[in-house]
Amino acid sequence: MSGGVEWALHCCVVLTAADRPVSALRLAQLHDVSATYLAKQLQALSRAGLVHSAQGQAGGYVLTRSASEVTVLDVVEAVDGARPAFVCTEIRQRGPLATPREACTAPCAISRAMSAADEAWRAALRDVSIADLAHTVNSDYDRDVLGAIRGWLAPAS
Amino acid sequence: MSGGVEWALHCCVVLTAADRPVSALRLAQLHDVSATYLAKQLQALSRAGLVHSAQGQAGGYVLTRSASEVTVLDVVEAVDGARPAFVCTEIRQRGPLATPREACTAPCAISRAMSAADEAWRAALRDVSIADLAHTVNSDYDRDVLGAIRGWLAPAS
Repeated sequence: MSGGVEWALHCCVVLTAADRPVSALRLAQLHDVSATYLAKQLQALSRAGLVHSAQGQAGGYVLTRSASEVTVLDVVEAVDGARPAFVCTEIRQRGPLATPREACTAPCAISRAMSAADEAWRAALRDVSIADLAHTVNSDYDRDVLGAIRGWLAPAS
Repeated sequence: MSGGVEWALHCCVVLTAADRPVSALRLAQLHDVSATYLAKQLQALSRAGLVHSAQGQAGGYVLTRSASEVTVLDVVEAVDGARPAFVCTEIRQRGPLATPREACTAPCAISRAMSAADEAWRAALRDVSIADLAHTVNSDYDRDVLGAIRGWLAPAS
């Protein structure tokens, strides 16, 4: 898994606290990370339709739907793609005892075991929404973390 | 996940069919793959204690314990290590609103969600043994696949 997933998830949680679009620069400042690097993750989220980039002086990123409808899996797949970690190369079709190609209509036992594990992983990530994460972040500490972020993000009046 | 995992799993299933040690060369011939490459995976299995390398003219690899006691997870971890795919870099401790280090006694919400998914993946892989795979391989096709392998591996009499 790429490091970008962690950054993208943190950005999504931060966006739940914002009441207006947040620029990539501001998100980068909040996280003390290169804006160029963070922009790459935000663009991946944008391509996947999870965030929308509003243009203009008050522009920036907003979640395109309720945080309860964005799962951790959505973010992982936006950044790293949906390709499973295990890719079957049909070893059973090799060598002197090769299974004939026409007999390989279903995935082999090894491939099925890997797919089942991959699905268990995805199901667990699908089971947690960005709203769940935001709620947990706020209950983990003795302070209103997201409230503090909201205040920090608000433009000086 | 490295491609070596798939080769290592196939080798373990083949070893359940053998009634004597099988050399890396013979396993490589059966799979039509480079013996050098396969030896690397077999060495990983050996380091993890899953196979034993018998020396001598009739030497080769044998499973060190019953195939029902070797899980797919054992093989995956032998080849790729046990390190989770997601590594938390403590992003919460960065920037102007950093959570103080001393408040970070437990993993953050994002890290916990990732760990739960990782554990679900491992549990699914732990739930399938090499014996299960061998049994499924044999019931998947209209022929005795492992019996044919056993015959092919047996030295000419």
